[in-house]
Amino acid sequence: MQPTVITAKPLEAKIRVLLDRNDQDELRRFLNSLKAPDLADVLDRLSDSERTFAFSMLSPPLAAATLAEVSPESKRLLIGTLSRQELAEVLKYLPLDDVTRLIIDVPSREKDILAEVSSEVVQEVINNLQYPPSSAGRLMTEKFVSVQPSMTAQEAIEHLREIHRDAETFTDVYAVDEDGHLEGVSSLRDLIMALPSQKVAEFMTTDVVTVAPTDDQELAARLIAHYNFLALPVTREGRILGIITVDDIIDVLIEEGTEDQLRFGGVEPGVINQPYFTTPIWRVVRSRVGWLVLLFVAETATGTVLRHFEDELARVVALSFFIPLLIGTGGNTGAQTVSTIIRGLALKEIRLRDTARVVLRELWSGLLLGLTLGVIAFTRAELWGSGHQLSMVVALAIIAICTWANTIGSLIPLAAQRFKIDPALVSAPLITTLVDATGLAIYLMIAKVLLSALR
Amino acid sequence: MQPTVITAKPLEAKIRVLLDRNDQDELRRFLNSLKAPDLADVLDRLSDSERTFAFSMLSPPLAAATLAEVSPESKRLLIGTLSRQELAEVLKYLPLDDVTRLIIDVPSREKDILAEVSSEVVQEVINNLQYPPSSAGRLMTEKFVSVQPSMTAQEAIEHLREIHRDAETFTDVYAVDEDGHLEGVSSLRDLIMALPSQKVAEFMTTDVVTVAPTDDQELAARLIAHYNFLALPVTREGRILGIITVDDIIDVLIEEGTEDQLRFGGVEPGVINQPYFTTPIWRVVRSRVGWLVLLFVAETATGTVLRHFEDELARVVALSFFIPLLIGTGGNTGAQTVSTIIRGLALKEIRLRDTARVVLRELWSGLLLGLTLGVIAFTRAELWGSGHQLSMVVALAIIAICTWANTIGSLIPLAAQRFKIDPALVSAPLITTLVDATGLAIYLMIAKVLLSALR
Repeated sequence: MQPTVITAKPLEAKIRVLLDRNDQDELRRFLNSLKAPDLADVLDRLSDSERTFAFSMLSPPLAAATLAEVSPESKRLLIGTLSRQELAEVLKYLPLDDVTRLIIDVPSREKDILAEVSSEVVQEVINNLQYPPSSAGRLMTEKFVSVQPSMTAQEAIEHLREIHRDAETFTDVYAVDEDGHLEGVSSLRDLIMALPSQKVAEFMTTDVVTVAPTDDQELAARLIAHYNFLALPVTREGRILGIITVDDIIDVLIEEGTEDQLRFGGVEPGVINQPYFTTPIWRVVRSRVGWLVLLFVAETATGTVLRHFEDELARVVALSFFIPLLIGTGGNTGAQTVSTIIRGLALKEIRLRDTARVVLRELWSGLLLGLTLGVIAFTRAELWGSGHQLSMVVALAIIAICTWANTIGSLIPLAAQRFKIDPALVSAPLITTLVDATGLAIYLMIAKVLLSALR
Repeated sequence: MQPTVITAKPLEAKIRVLLDRNDQDELRRFLNSLKAPDLADVLDRLSDSERTFAFSMLSPPLAAATLAEVSPESKRLLIGTLSRQELAEVLKYLPLDDVTRLIIDVPSREKDILAEVSSEVVQEVINNLQYPPSSAGRLMTEKFVSVQPSMTAQEAIEHLREIHRDAETFTDVYAVDEDGHLEGVSSLRDLIMALPSQKVAEFMTTDVVTVAPTDDQELAARLIAHYNFLALPVTREGRILGIITVDDIIDVLIEEGTEDQLRFGGVEPGVINQPYFTTPIWRVVRSRVGWLVLLFVAETATGTVLRHFEDELARVVALSFFIPLLIGTGGNTGAQTVSTIIRGLALKEIRLRDTARVVLRELWSGLLLGLTLGVIAFTRAELWGSGHQLSMVVALAIIAICTWANTIGSLIPLAAQRFKIDPALVSAPLITTLVDATGLAIYLMIAKVLLSALR
């Protein structure tokens, strides 16, 4: 799914009207009435000067929330224009994980940023930067709310009111002992529903699922998705370091979804791990060349097949006219099947024990698709005046190739799953390549048998 | 990302040990200590008899929660074995949206299910079934918590304690007037943080984002992802009908991600909309045949190109040996570029105004990839004894085709975005097909110019 901009266009139009009218009071009022994610989308669409002007009108808390959501490019622009004092004002409202991300995105102002936050935050930011990119540690926020397990529900609620006025939206309360060890967790709901005199230790969940800060963010995403959590604590040696919230996980899921698409296109995403424009070209090439060379070598098998039928191709040149058409269609059919099977496996609709049923189904639909295309191919070949025999060869070949491509396209991802390889690694180019040489052999063998000119 | 089973394997092993030992007490204790999502994964892996036996040991609330998470196949099996009384017991703990889904998944027991729930629930289920599949209405739960805007924070908290003991995990409280109109929303956090004497109307948010029950679930997912919401109210004519929670949205996002992959493979997911095995084959064919025929017709352009070079192909048959290799590699390179660009657009790293920069970057990386493959192709052609001239033609053609495929692969998704077509509709087969005919023309023109045998 593309995370489309929902409301940016009409907002942009309205802001432009106010900018044109130079109605600063109204513009300020309007901008400050917007929600941060909408503001971020609009700012990303404005010109550089409009963007900095509009940003300067935001109240510091809204400016901070917006800064956390804009593109890295906008971050660099907007942070670049702030004075030290304005920067300090915004940083006051920025959670730790966003401060860390800001330093990564705007390295030129790292010193200024670190100078304007407390030494405690500096230490935390340095800690965060030590975790690898895409790790749980990079994703976590330190703004979680903790109580002591020995407090009563009433005491815990009062404690929250006093101490945690500035915490972000929170949904869970963590019961932590004096040494920072995580003893249990209670939802805010359970805290409210408990009898005021009940101790937190009595109603908290002690069987807490956690991740380590060095774990991959994908693990955190999987755990949150699997257990329907709203937040997941990050611990080291039993001590709670921070939490990962479900909204960050949604971003991870969208990102991982696009990584699967990269893989399906035959690109290894692990090598990239950076925004498009900041990835050096040599690294882009590195993420692609491995698959390309492998596929190229596999594809040379097509040359071997063609050389094997050299005589036939020399005697009936028209045979070669249909080569790209036939293997191209085989590749397209195969790519369709692979994507269907990968989806079925991902949604757990297909299991390994269903292999026979899956292959049979795909064989059937391949045959039906082949019959449809075979009729079209026959007509086209006749229109080219290829002769009835050749037209028939092409039609039969396309039926056979579609059936074959569908079968291969279903077997390969299932085999990957069987050998514990992520089926998402089975890419469209891989299937296309596998179908090419085999499809050629099918075509030319049918021709050899049926064409009287070749006998 | 594949929503992999996290803990099912070791749990399955342990359960099998207990089943083998026939230690029923220990098995019962162990099963009831598990979390519903883990139980669901394990049950899906067991044999039919093991599955029903293990399910029969669960406490009714855990059985209900597990039933909501298992595969449709398991649902049919498990519900099928329940007596009317057992069914009634489980239904008591099942939220309305899961009852609706149960009826959809196990139509054979629709009557029994509807007979065992209250007439109020029957009415609600019938209402839900009227919303189209994949709509917000199908996804919503009616178990939200409401207060009156005129209540004080203290009164609201006491109201929650009294009335909403049975509500699911909740994070937001909805302020609703006597007629059911949604007046505002407050997070549980804000409710706790408010002064006990403050009225809900004073601190609630009145600018509430909502969806209609007939809206697509993808819109709800986008809104929740965009605004970092934990829940989204569903309203009709201002009246609140239910809420959609973030955990359901995560499932939608995973599903939508796999739909994008289907599209990239050239399958139209809209036609399917059902689990793999329950989709009739004619519908599978319908979802694929449109693209296949379109691509087939486009691909016949390759035949036109080849007929144009009929003389050359007749004079140097070896020329045709490299046709699949060259156009296959062009297709692979193009597919890589498309998936890179679609990802960049989805993550908003690439914007339309960057078009020139994008194309230039892809042109460069295409050239670098082409040079690498050109060297390999030259070597391979020499080893086949194709003659130095032909080897050189193949090497030059591959450089040109890679550069060209990369350029086309970046331009097409950007053009789609420009004309407001979802770039995710640009599939690998589409690019492969576009590159095939043009790649052939490039190859044969280079051959015509450079091969002395053709002059």
